[in-house]
Amino acid sequence: MIRIGITGASGYSGLELIKLLHSHPQVKIDKLFGQSTVGKNISDIHPSLRNIFSAVIENFDEKKLNSLDCLFIALPSGESFPIAEIAAKKNIITIDLGGDYRLNDMKVYEQYYKKSHKLPELMNKSVYGLPEWNEENISGATFIANPGCYPTSILLGLIPLLKYNFIKTDSIAINSYSGISGAGKSVSESMMFAEINENTRAYKIGTHQHIPEIKLYLEKFSNKNSDFSFVPHLLPITRGIYTTMHAKLTADYSEEQIHELYMHNYANKKFIRVLGGSLPELKNVQHTNFCDIGFKVYDNNLIIITAIDNLIKGASGQAIQNMNIIFNFSQATGLL
Amino acid sequence: MIRIGITGASGYSGLELIKLLHSHPQVKIDKLFGQSTVGKNISDIHPSLRNIFSAVIENFDEKKLNSLDCLFIALPSGESFPIAEIAAKKNIITIDLGGDYRLNDMKVYEQYYKKSHKLPELMNKSVYGLPEWNEENISGATFIANPGCYPTSILLGLIPLLKYNFIKTDSIAINSYSGISGAGKSVSESMMFAEINENTRAYKIGTHQHIPEIKLYLEKFSNKNSDFSFVPHLLPITRGIYTTMHAKLTADYSEEQIHELYMHNYANKKFIRVLGGSLPELKNVQHTNFCDIGFKVYDNNLIIITAIDNLIKGASGQAIQNMNIIFNFSQATGLL
Amino acid sequence: MIRIGITGASGYSGLELIKLLHSHPQVKIDKLFGQSTVGKNISDIHPSLRNIFSAVIENFDEKKLNSLDCLFIALPSGESFPIAEIAAKKNIITIDLGGDYRLNDMKVYEQYYKKSHKLPELMNKSVYGLPEWNEENISGATFIANPGCYPTSILLGLIPLLKYNFIKTDSIAINSYSGISGAGKSVSESMMFAEINENTRAYKIGTHQHIPEIKLYLEKFSNKNSDFSFVPHLLPITRGIYTTMHAKLTADYSEEQIHELYMHNYANKKFIRVLGGSLPELKNVQHTNFCDIGFKVYDNNLIIITAIDNLIKGASGQAIQNMNIIFNFSQATGLL
Amino acid sequence: MIRIGITGASGYSGLELIKLLHSHPQVKIDKLFGQSTVGKNISDIHPSLRNIFSAVIENFDEKKLNSLDCLFIALPSGESFPIAEIAAKKNIITIDLGGDYRLNDMKVYEQYYKKSHKLPELMNKSVYGLPEWNEENISGATFIANPGCYPTSILLGLIPLLKYNFIKTDSIAINSYSGISGAGKSVSESMMFAEINENTRAYKIGTHQHIPEIKLYLEKFSNKNSDFSFVPHLLPITRGIYTTMHAKLTADYSEEQIHELYMHNYANKKFIRVLGGSLPELKNVQHTNFCDIGFKVYDNNLIIITAIDNLIKGASGQAIQNMNIIFNFSQATGLL
Repeated sequence: MIRIGITGASGYSGLELIKLLHSHPQVKIDKLFGQSTVGKNISDIHPSLRNIFSAVIENFDEKKLNSLDCLFIALPSGESFPIAEIAAKKNIITIDLGGDYRLNDMKVYEQYYKKSHKLPELMNKSVYGLPEWNEENISGATFIANPGCYPTSILLGLIPLLKYNFIKTDSIAINSYSGISGAGKSVSESMMFAEINENTRAYKIGTHQHIPEIKLYLEKFSNKNSDFSFVPHLLPITRGIYTTMHAKLTADYSEEQIHELYMHNYANKKFIRVLGGSLPELKNVQHTNFCDIGFKVYDNNLIIITAIDNLIKGASGQAIQNMNIIFNFSQATGLL
Repeated sequence: MIRIGITGASGYSGLELIKLLHSHPQVKIDKLFGQSTVGKNISDIHPSLRNIFSAVIENFDEKKLNSLDCLFIALPSGESFPIAEIAAKKNIITIDLGGDYRLNDMKVYEQYYKKSHKLPELMNKSVYGLPEWNEENISGATFIANPGCYPTSILLGLIPLLKYNFIKTDSIAINSYSGISGAGKSVSESMMFAEINENTRAYKIGTHQHIPEIKLYLEKFSNKNSDFSFVPHLLPITRGIYTTMHAKLTADYSEEQIHELYMHNYANKKFIRVLGGSLPELKNVQHTNFCDIGFKVYDNNLIIITAIDNLIKGASGQAIQNMNIIFNFSQATGLL
Repeated sequence: MIRIGITGASGYSGLELIKLLHSHPQVKIDKLFGQSTVGKNISDIHPSLRNIFSAVIENFDEKKLNSLDCLFIALPSGESFPIAEIAAKKNIITIDLGGDYRLNDMKVYEQYYKKSHKLPELMNKSVYGLPEWNEENISGATFIANPGCYPTSILLGLIPLLKYNFIKTDSIAINSYSGISGAGKSVSESMMFAEINENTRAYKIGTHQHIPEIKLYLEKFSNKNSDFSFVPHLLPITRGIYTTMHAKLTADYSEEQIHELYMHNYANKKFIRVLGGSLPELKNVQHTNFCDIGFKVYDNNLIIITAIDNLIKGASGQAIQNMNIIFNFSQATGLL
Repeated sequence: MIRIGITGASGYSGLELIKLLHSHPQVKIDKLFGQSTVGKNISDIHPSLRNIFSAVIENFDEKKLNSLDCLFIALPSGESFPIAEIAAKKNIITIDLGGDYRLNDMKVYEQYYKKSHKLPELMNKSVYGLPEWNEENISGATFIANPGCYPTSILLGLIPLLKYNFIKTDSIAINSYSGISGAGKSVSESMMFAEINENTRAYKIGTHQHIPEIKLYLEKFSNKNSDFSFVPHLLPITRGIYTTMHAKLTADYSEEQIHELYMHNYANKKFIRVLGGSLPELKNVQHTNFCDIGFKVYDNNLIIITAIDNLIKGASGQAIQNMNIIFNFSQATGLL
């Protein structure tokens, strides 16, 4: 039984963390940390937790880490620094769900996140928590940078194809549609129900903060440079990311060969489901840690489609998958 | 005052035709034709029409065309042949909203529509009803093949760029998301509310019947061959098509230059709204005949986004725009 | 051609006012007044208006009223006083869409609206703009208090039944479900998409500000005291109010007799559609000024159901219907 | 470890049964029975089950029951008779999720279900599976009639109030709004996405098959006759029932007293959450077996609101709760 602390439990990812960790057989949620919510019971903030889980939110304090085996940080990007610094100093196993430690270049961080970075050394020391491609490093890590939701949906689809030279490295066109919970709980007119419902729109073309993360890890895990365009969109639903990618095949590969390639890479990866003759649908992955991958060869084009739950495989579920690896639990514990 | 007949009034496009034509100042809806619905009042089929428009659906009969100036055919593809044949023989001005007369090659029709074509000569004689690019031919036409919803959203965005060599002709990646009314009223498990709601999925990749239509008219209106991949998706809303296109610029064009190009082509086109600094949203075009076009230059990529209402600019509104041209009304009559 | 001014054009009701008045054949929208939006073009605030209607928002100024025949005030309750005072002083025909002038008792206003009232005399002088029951007073009015959305849906269903003693005056149970646009454009966490989507909830039971309005006008138009309970709910859609009312019949009335009663009251009311054998659906009234009324006798219960579009019959459409009456246009001008 | 069979696994309730039972620590799903689906793998019918649960659907056969400890029947009403007859004969513990065994009067069954009943003795022998009010009978039962979704949401709210004379027995007005999954998977035009989305409507007023079930068990568990009107509605979401009930208090009870009454009845009922100062929301109960109960005293009215997930507490979750009771597991096993 390991003892867990969570900071940022009042957000959407925080709620998923609590629900999943609460039913995880090897885990006890020991402490919830907050700022504006200190003194409140988490089940008053998330009434869905009533009769399931109850805990009063506390001020963060260095000493309270002593009783913990693992800390999850589920704060908006740019707000993790004070806590991450202490956690790193105390060497407690930490899994950060935000974007602050995924990149390796301060300037790129500042350009895309529009913030200055307070802990550049930690950024370099952190391990990128994409279990299907980085398990070995994760298993010995102290500080995990949990991947972003869009990058997760993109990397899992593209890495095998790039790594094994199935697609040309230029002209990759990526369209992602994300459910609205991906935007978190911060209040704005553009996220009001009457503005989103029955609507859709692209946003942050060329400036989305996940672009350098996608670029960095595509290269790292495939050993290829690649050139892609990425357009994120809002989908008027609550949960899920649906990513459609267009690429050019390097040779006349059949769908069977594509399928074999994916199976070669993912056959023993519990949370990747490679679809044979059908295409992914969001409803099959919502509320799960799965990434469904489908594809279609069409003229010389390869269309690759992935579907994930942005709050689970794109955030809290993947964070727990990383925790399971670090603590030597089976990867799927508490996630199936 | 011209007298109008409509066949296929009980579908979604038929309802929009009635609503728009009923409030059109130069038009009287004179006859509604049907088969299984003969004898019913259209306001019982579409209760939203009560106190607005009332008419009993009749059997189609050659003689009844004598009193009409214009016939709209709003039937599923493959079901128009008997009526179209008679209408063509009598030389009545006809606007067909289905897919039966848009292509120019029987074999391609049969491959994509999986039906045999009964009127190949009419297919060749028909005029493609995309007013922004084919107005001259439309104005003298007797038989209009009204464009498909996806092609409308794609052609309006791409033709100027191809025609004026702004983008490379290969590697165009097209993603379209369509509201569910685009699938029409036919009943199937996959279109049930509980299957579509909070879900999304791609479908018919490489086989969608609009692919040859897009290819044919891209070439025709831009005088370029081009190579594109097209992925249609279902969006869990009722109305609208949102199309995101990725292309490579042929030179280092600025967004200002792209804007100028579009304005050069569309400044005097009432229903094209070229957006300067913002991106299209479906809510701005729903229930209208507008096509909003937005774009973004990003590295050497040009992202083009169009938004239309699939039932209006993608079907009934555009059909009326064509009627307005043929009968010498102002193009926007009854549509604004 | 009458000249119109609108204050509060940047909200949802304001947008509907502009769309409807813009296509009204007897009206010219002459001035838009605002505060924080002064200097902006309304088509930048509501991009759906581009290519349709364009006007720069101005500061309100007493002198500017001189050129106007009619002023619409579409401000949140409690914000109308400075403008209403000037409009009343200048005796310009004014239609207020807010709640400030519908009641007749300062204390009740202050209890339910939690604000102090600045113009009690105007409250008493104003005419309640429910055309189907107050047309005579409306036709000579200078200052119209346009009804609330919930009251409209309730009064139109209940008044005939109470007035003609068909239902017992106690034990009337009213359930209303409203689309989210009814809450207006003000930003709050509880109105964010991810909080509303796939959810529903009741709110303000016993304290909703429309309760005294319903009570007052039920009594006024039916000449009966009545006792009802009212529970408003949020429906996770954009537009429409669906109200289900339970009452006890005073005698063994048949559905035919109920139908006759409604027809007796509403046969010549263009915007009331009394349904015979079917029940209302929101989709039949959305984007229209209709109120659909259905009913069912069941044991000794009468169930009455009404459906309206909250932004049209529940706000802007009804306001224009009132304007039409005052200026002697046909009631349906610009509304069908 | 008990061995379970399920018939009707391809429907929505069937899917929930599989998901819940698969993660239940005391249960092994041993057999899935079907008719038209025999030979198919359940994970092809429900792709969300891939990598989680796999089993081929078999023909039902009397002998196959020998290896089972418990049979769930999740068939549409009227289709259970052949299987239920065999299960009853073999005395296997059976939990039927349909409506065929909940009533006690053949004529009432035939009037409301519009079918003839083939097993009237079993109807009388069956035990109504509402654990919060019938646990003692359930614990020794062989054949459980699992409650309907609407009745569950209504009975849990009203029984304490009627039993302890807090509300008058007449004039109870009940409004329920149900998500669309409640209608099951059968295909019809009225359940198509484009007909339901952004819409709402009442249906089956006075004729819904749950009316006699509500009446029977209200009386049975409260020992009071009562008179209510019930209006079911469709809510354009996938999951959940939200029921708002209006009643008259028999005396001047405070909200504190109502709260005490509910706590007196439900304090030790794990799945009933009595809300103090707030009102239920569907999002708090979706995907759970909870019934949230809220209330408000308003003049002499008591408004009671309940929220459940129709597929869990209203169907599969409650069925498993009953199984837990019969097999002496803790009631919440596999459900929290």
